[in-house]
Amino acid sequence: MTNSRLEHDFLGERAIPEHAYYGIQTLRALENFDITGIPLRTEPLFVQSLAYVKKAAALANKELGVLDANIAKHIALACDKVAVGQYDDQFLTDMIQGGAGTSVNMNANEVIANVALELMGHQKGEYQYCHPNNHVNCSQSTNDAYPTAFRIALSNKLVGYAQTLGELADAFAAKGEEFRNVLKMGRTQLQDAVPMSMGDEFKAFATNLREELLRIEDSRRLISEINMGATAIGTRVNAPNGYAELVTEHLRTITGLDLSLAGDLIEATYDTGAYVQLSGVLKRTAVKLSKICNDLRLLSSGPRTGFNEINLPPLQPGSSIMPGKVNPVVPEVVNQTAFYVIGADLTVTMAAEAGQLQLNVMEPVISFALFTSISYMTRACRTLREKCVVGITANVQHAENQVRNSIGIVTQLNPVLGYETSAEIAKEALRTGKSVYDVAVTERGLLTQAKWDEIFTFENLIRPHFIQ
Amino acid sequence: MTNSRLEHDFLGERAIPEHAYYGIQTLRALENFDITGIPLRTEPLFVQSLAYVKKAAALANKELGVLDANIAKHIALACDKVAVGQYDDQFLTDMIQGGAGTSVNMNANEVIANVALELMGHQKGEYQYCHPNNHVNCSQSTNDAYPTAFRIALSNKLVGYAQTLGELADAFAAKGEEFRNVLKMGRTQLQDAVPMSMGDEFKAFATNLREELLRIEDSRRLISEINMGATAIGTRVNAPNGYAELVTEHLRTITGLDLSLAGDLIEATYDTGAYVQLSGVLKRTAVKLSKICNDLRLLSSGPRTGFNEINLPPLQPGSSIMPGKVNPVVPEVVNQTAFYVIGADLTVTMAAEAGQLQLNVMEPVISFALFTSISYMTRACRTLREKCVVGITANVQHAENQVRNSIGIVTQLNPVLGYETSAEIAKEALRTGKSVYDVAVTERGLLTQAKWDEIFTFENLIRPHFIQ
Amino acid sequence: MTNSRLEHDFLGERAIPEHAYYGIQTLRALENFDITGIPLRTEPLFVQSLAYVKKAAALANKELGVLDANIAKHIALACDKVAVGQYDDQFLTDMIQGGAGTSVNMNANEVIANVALELMGHQKGEYQYCHPNNHVNCSQSTNDAYPTAFRIALSNKLVGYAQTLGELADAFAAKGEEFRNVLKMGRTQLQDAVPMSMGDEFKAFATNLREELLRIEDSRRLISEINMGATAIGTRVNAPNGYAELVTEHLRTITGLDLSLAGDLIEATYDTGAYVQLSGVLKRTAVKLSKICNDLRLLSSGPRTGFNEINLPPLQPGSSIMPGKVNPVVPEVVNQTAFYVIGADLTVTMAAEAGQLQLNVMEPVISFALFTSISYMTRACRTLREKCVVGITANVQHAENQVRNSIGIVTQLNPVLGYETSAEIAKEALRTGKSVYDVAVTERGLLTQAKWDEIFTFENLIRPHFIQ
Amino acid sequence: MTNSRLEHDFLGERAIPEHAYYGIQTLRALENFDITGIPLRTEPLFVQSLAYVKKAAALANKELGVLDANIAKHIALACDKVAVGQYDDQFLTDMIQGGAGTSVNMNANEVIANVALELMGHQKGEYQYCHPNNHVNCSQSTNDAYPTAFRIALSNKLVGYAQTLGELADAFAAKGEEFRNVLKMGRTQLQDAVPMSMGDEFKAFATNLREELLRIEDSRRLISEINMGATAIGTRVNAPNGYAELVTEHLRTITGLDLSLAGDLIEATYDTGAYVQLSGVLKRTAVKLSKICNDLRLLSSGPRTGFNEINLPPLQPGSSIMPGKVNPVVPEVVNQTAFYVIGADLTVTMAAEAGQLQLNVMEPVISFALFTSISYMTRACRTLREKCVVGITANVQHAENQVRNSIGIVTQLNPVLGYETSAEIAKEALRTGKSVYDVAVTERGLLTQAKWDEIFTFENLIRPHFIQ
Repeated sequence: MTNSRLEHDFLGERAIPEHAYYGIQTLRALENFDITGIPLRTEPLFVQSLAYVKKAAALANKELGVLDANIAKHIALACDKVAVGQYDDQFLTDMIQGGAGTSVNMNANEVIANVALELMGHQKGEYQYCHPNNHVNCSQSTNDAYPTAFRIALSNKLVGYAQTLGELADAFAAKGEEFRNVLKMGRTQLQDAVPMSMGDEFKAFATNLREELLRIEDSRRLISEINMGATAIGTRVNAPNGYAELVTEHLRTITGLDLSLAGDLIEATYDTGAYVQLSGVLKRTAVKLSKICNDLRLLSSGPRTGFNEINLPPLQPGSSIMPGKVNPVVPEVVNQTAFYVIGADLTVTMAAEAGQLQLNVMEPVISFALFTSISYMTRACRTLREKCVVGITANVQHAENQVRNSIGIVTQLNPVLGYETSAEIAKEALRTGKSVYDVAVTERGLLTQAKWDEIFTFENLIRPHFIQ
Repeated sequence: MTNSRLEHDFLGERAIPEHAYYGIQTLRALENFDITGIPLRTEPLFVQSLAYVKKAAALANKELGVLDANIAKHIALACDKVAVGQYDDQFLTDMIQGGAGTSVNMNANEVIANVALELMGHQKGEYQYCHPNNHVNCSQSTNDAYPTAFRIALSNKLVGYAQTLGELADAFAAKGEEFRNVLKMGRTQLQDAVPMSMGDEFKAFATNLREELLRIEDSRRLISEINMGATAIGTRVNAPNGYAELVTEHLRTITGLDLSLAGDLIEATYDTGAYVQLSGVLKRTAVKLSKICNDLRLLSSGPRTGFNEINLPPLQPGSSIMPGKVNPVVPEVVNQTAFYVIGADLTVTMAAEAGQLQLNVMEPVISFALFTSISYMTRACRTLREKCVVGITANVQHAENQVRNSIGIVTQLNPVLGYETSAEIAKEALRTGKSVYDVAVTERGLLTQAKWDEIFTFENLIRPHFIQ
Repeated sequence: MTNSRLEHDFLGERAIPEHAYYGIQTLRALENFDITGIPLRTEPLFVQSLAYVKKAAALANKELGVLDANIAKHIALACDKVAVGQYDDQFLTDMIQGGAGTSVNMNANEVIANVALELMGHQKGEYQYCHPNNHVNCSQSTNDAYPTAFRIALSNKLVGYAQTLGELADAFAAKGEEFRNVLKMGRTQLQDAVPMSMGDEFKAFATNLREELLRIEDSRRLISEINMGATAIGTRVNAPNGYAELVTEHLRTITGLDLSLAGDLIEATYDTGAYVQLSGVLKRTAVKLSKICNDLRLLSSGPRTGFNEINLPPLQPGSSIMPGKVNPVVPEVVNQTAFYVIGADLTVTMAAEAGQLQLNVMEPVISFALFTSISYMTRACRTLREKCVVGITANVQHAENQVRNSIGIVTQLNPVLGYETSAEIAKEALRTGKSVYDVAVTERGLLTQAKWDEIFTFENLIRPHFIQ
Repeated sequence: MTNSRLEHDFLGERAIPEHAYYGIQTLRALENFDITGIPLRTEPLFVQSLAYVKKAAALANKELGVLDANIAKHIALACDKVAVGQYDDQFLTDMIQGGAGTSVNMNANEVIANVALELMGHQKGEYQYCHPNNHVNCSQSTNDAYPTAFRIALSNKLVGYAQTLGELADAFAAKGEEFRNVLKMGRTQLQDAVPMSMGDEFKAFATNLREELLRIEDSRRLISEINMGATAIGTRVNAPNGYAELVTEHLRTITGLDLSLAGDLIEATYDTGAYVQLSGVLKRTAVKLSKICNDLRLLSSGPRTGFNEINLPPLQPGSSIMPGKVNPVVPEVVNQTAFYVIGADLTVTMAAEAGQLQLNVMEPVISFALFTSISYMTRACRTLREKCVVGITANVQHAENQVRNSIGIVTQLNPVLGYETSAEIAKEALRTGKSVYDVAVTERGLLTQAKWDEIFTFENLIRPHFIQ
């Protein structure tokens, strides 16, 4: 390799491409870890957060007198550039690595050191002026810098996700309003139950998802607890007095997030409980989305031999062989996304359980799983809203006819005729194919026409009041 | 405690109830492990297998001259009594314990020793004549005796399960025959697809489940590999030469199973691969059963606002409020059983992953999960057959009407009219609510009546032949 | 059957044993559901909660004029008897059933009706005076009564669990205090890291678990939202005006819990989000407990060829073949319990995802999974505290010797000598087997003895301060 | 868009970039599905298999007279070009889509049609000469073409995976040979057990993994069953007589795989059992690899305060703060890969369970999960072999010293002194810190020196023979 510089660590010496801002430890990581092929730069928020952490550390170190002011200044400047994405292409470490994030941390340390060196008028690699470990990583360990950056990135990524999820809920709520006077049959256990408003059905989807926004906020609170200053295992070894509190304060300012320092730094350094909780929240939303998409597919089943209550917007020909077939492709892809996220939650669970003693070395796969899940969920929510929910229409007449023709409306006779007589009517209607009206009024004269009319108004079917 | 005998182990001395055939180590286990409240005796096949193992060991030990012939004889006699269930009430250890099965093994050693003592004319506890460790456990470790007994029990339990599963498949096949001339709409993605025979649908359920019988046989083959003679960690320490092979031969005779000695005893002593495989097979069947039950619930949905193609036998009033409602309660309980089994598979997975070095200490929870899953699956299969499948009836006319009224039959025009023209017809039918016949023949004259009649015979709808 | 009474429902007539307080629908459930063999009465808190719900309904119904005052009074009296466990033996329905809990609800309705009948001076089965559906179930559906009772039972069961978990955390904290001056090596990635206090390690276990108490409280808040008055699908059909609010108020009083009526009853009737959340909380605690038990097993590994830093109390001989072996059986059983709970969480997840339209019919398996998990976790926490944690002792001298002999203490030279020089020392010590002191002070003279002594005081090793 | 052509389907007309070989339905898929951002072309074996399927269909269709010979010839030529990767860049559909693979199938149909058109001297888009549906997809449905291609791709991908896994097993076996005379302590439950050969420990890893090769072959057998000719739902509608058998024969020839036509095409069209089985096999191997990596990390723990029996090759500085620290980064990344694969197995499970009626619409996420898992596992196995296993060294003297100093060797006195006396010795050694020799021979004189020497030869420690 002609255009290269030599770098060394305690394992030896290696040539680094001259243009590279990363250094020898990143190079080793690239050689050692080739699992997913998905590099760190695919999560720009993570790169940004690493820069935030390094900047906060530089400022705190300078103020505490353990880092030269000029070096600190240029590290901070370099961090600003990295934070806005200017060097994303230098963050090449595979998303899954061994080493508990050391390669990610060193990738950041090296890039920031070299950017700072150039800003100081030096050549890349002249680490005597600004060293990845001694200066950029000063008063830090991977074991506090990495999880702190991870948590900041998660928190920021959740903002966009919550926004998209909220918009999806709003879209369901709007449909709820639109369909409020569509009368349809409610179903339990896939069997005809009692009538309801289609609007209430869609409004319930909105309620169901809006509750998730609160859970996401819970998660953001839990992950806002950081362990900067814990260094290697939480004993604060090699961090100057007051550093932990000061760097946390700087990070709060830089990120605008309500970060707090963990009360027990030993515990905070190995604990992955906040990730398990967050993963559980993502899973819960996935479960709900999957249930909702199952419902949308059921309600739009048909067109002739299914429920056929609603129509999803047609997006593409549904079959390479069956002409005219249109399928519920968007709910289907959301179901699949949900299954992915539920699987990823198991990955997080196992990784969390595998922590040992003073550290959980499996944090990289946790970060991979969580970042991926949030990305996929965000896209799934957007797709579901844009490509499906906003375009749903109701088959109003068909839905109402089904109610009128149903046996389930007999339930509304309970308070008048009692459960057993009502059950008799239902049984007879089912056996003969007749309507409840025919059996109850015409044949058996159990109600007057007037009473029937009082009970079975449209208004009382769609939003029942108690009539005895 | 007045009526008790004193026993000791290297941790001290304890009083054991006089009537108890178990001894001090079982007592300690009862005190130490109180998690599930479900005792070993709930799996009589496991108790039986422990007796088989102890008998085979006694015979082999006697023949190799490391166990006194009279003691061996009485151990074998005691094992016979235990194997037929006479002392099941003495197997009280909780199904989940620490110690990698040592408590289960010692429970068996102690009970068998005391039964043997009585047969020899001694008192319970006079272990100088027949000792749980020195005699009953002779040439064994928990680490070979426990997994061997576990595997024998599993193998035998799978026989009953496979039988029940096979009968369920047969019941579906019989329905397949019964419904072979019921014409119905096939559905993909919950959308109307093309016509089919309801008989073929039910026959496919049979095919789907019969394949599982082969997989169960695969599992039985894998678990028939045992590690008797491996003793503590597979080095055969303390087992006389030739013992491993001889005890395996005896076990083959006693159990009638095609057991074989593992080729690598070190590996066999910690490996839980066969359990993971078996659990995966149970899970796969659970997945299939759940899918089938979902289908049964869909096909019987209604009666007025669902698919309503089949009727499940009514078993109980379906609602405490909705008169006449009958629900698909048996498929529902099978779905739930499937979810339990899928969860238990994860338990097995985690336990298998947690093995360390020369042993997997988590085998008890694996045994708990597998025994429970096989029991529940067996009962679920029997329930599904007896209470549901054999009583299913078809709504023949309704199903055929749906086909005739469907748009999906347009697919059969493809070879004659081409995909695009057929798609045009479908679109028009959907838009107007008309039938395919009306659009294709009456309105547009794209086919003669004769061609239509040739294509849309009952026979060609239910079992299509290629017509161009 | 000679001593029996005849009961009927709309599917026919059946003989019920005279002594039975349950009725025909419970009988059908016993015949239809035989999966786990574990009856409802194994969860007395659930039986109790059903009685609470029925009592609250009776009171509200009476006040709203839809239930005769005398019947209501006797229903309430019957509920009081059921709630204290007097009729637990009548609650025989299998924990997993189809029908979305209808069998459980009817079991309660029937038992309460018959108890009330006797209190009123009638015979069991004379339902004209007090009817399971018309009176006990008045203004209710399974779909509101069942989940409400389930939630109340969960909430109460969690109180005991939290108490036990808190006591375990306290036991760890006490050990933390006891071990505060035990110096030991911290480890990351199973490699020697830097020194720490063993007390801090145990205190961190306490911190780790105490956080769970907050999460349990979150869960209790979520499950305190109920849907009484929703009736069949949330439309309040057949419930008198004002009933939902009134019955909720009565339930609040009866249970002493801070229950609230859901804002969207349609959604609340099918939503299982609160169960998924609770299951996730149980799983998270299981993950943490498993990690802690892994640590306890690592730290007590040995005695000669492992870490050997701590001793767990010996509880039982560890091996049937290896004399004197004592194993960490309690942490092992807790690990296995954790794997069970993690598996059960998957069961809950799948059941939640399987909800359809206006109801989740899989709630019984959710209840089975959650009740079982809470029971097992409670017992595991108690066992871990009583049988293990309180008796742990430290190998003080061995632990300190390991620190003095370690290479990891070189980290504390970083601020003085820089990362690269320190790495050189470490490498040399590792290569030669020498101590850091030998290399740094004796051989290379990089530090004076005085500086060494300043840095490596006991106090600075166990609770490091920053020294440059 | 200036350089574009117009294409239409039954939903309307769209402009396609002139250079694109894909057509309107692929364009719609790109717009509709944006979840993973990972396009189909990342699985070139899948693209290749689609080409194989289309070629086989073209040949069969020509021979059966339903496809013009010239068109068939050019389709086959186009398929050859696609199969060697010439048009991989045209396969852009997201790996997760709705529509059960229709978009993937149409992407292939469109690309092949346009390549064929150019080969015939026509312009892209002149589908009257070669139509994606009428010609390329002739006698096919997505529902047979897609799973068949998927299965062929899986089978081929498994070949490479098995090769890599086998090489890893070989590397363990070679270490087994290298270490055969290294004496070390065996451990059960992390407690010292009895001595063994380190070679046997590594050989067992090889045995453990080689068993997986057989399971992979089982999987390949199961997925070699295809359903070509089933068309839409398995009724063979629109496929000429004899087509299914003929196209299968052609595919066998083209692929060189031992493919067979499913016996029940209705079942085969919706069944995902083979994927569940394969995913289970991948999971099982992941579980084993994770266990092995856990062992490697335990055995190399230290260097001073751990087991320290082996050394893993140092690959990168292990810490940004702790000088000289080297971590087991490769086993760690393999552990994490295993957790990913175990999570992906759950995704497959849920997707399989979600199949409904005549099709499983969730197959795309199954394909995504399986392809990803196989890729990651392959890379993990290669990494583990190259970067870790081949460079492992043993700390021979330390390992042997630990054995000599252990209490566990007392087990070998059992046959001579009995379990209880041996336990006494062990207890005393543990209490006093003395060696077994000191207690048994020197202090208590229970054995002569000669007997001791006979039992505790190196040979008898490492590969024990029975001595009484």
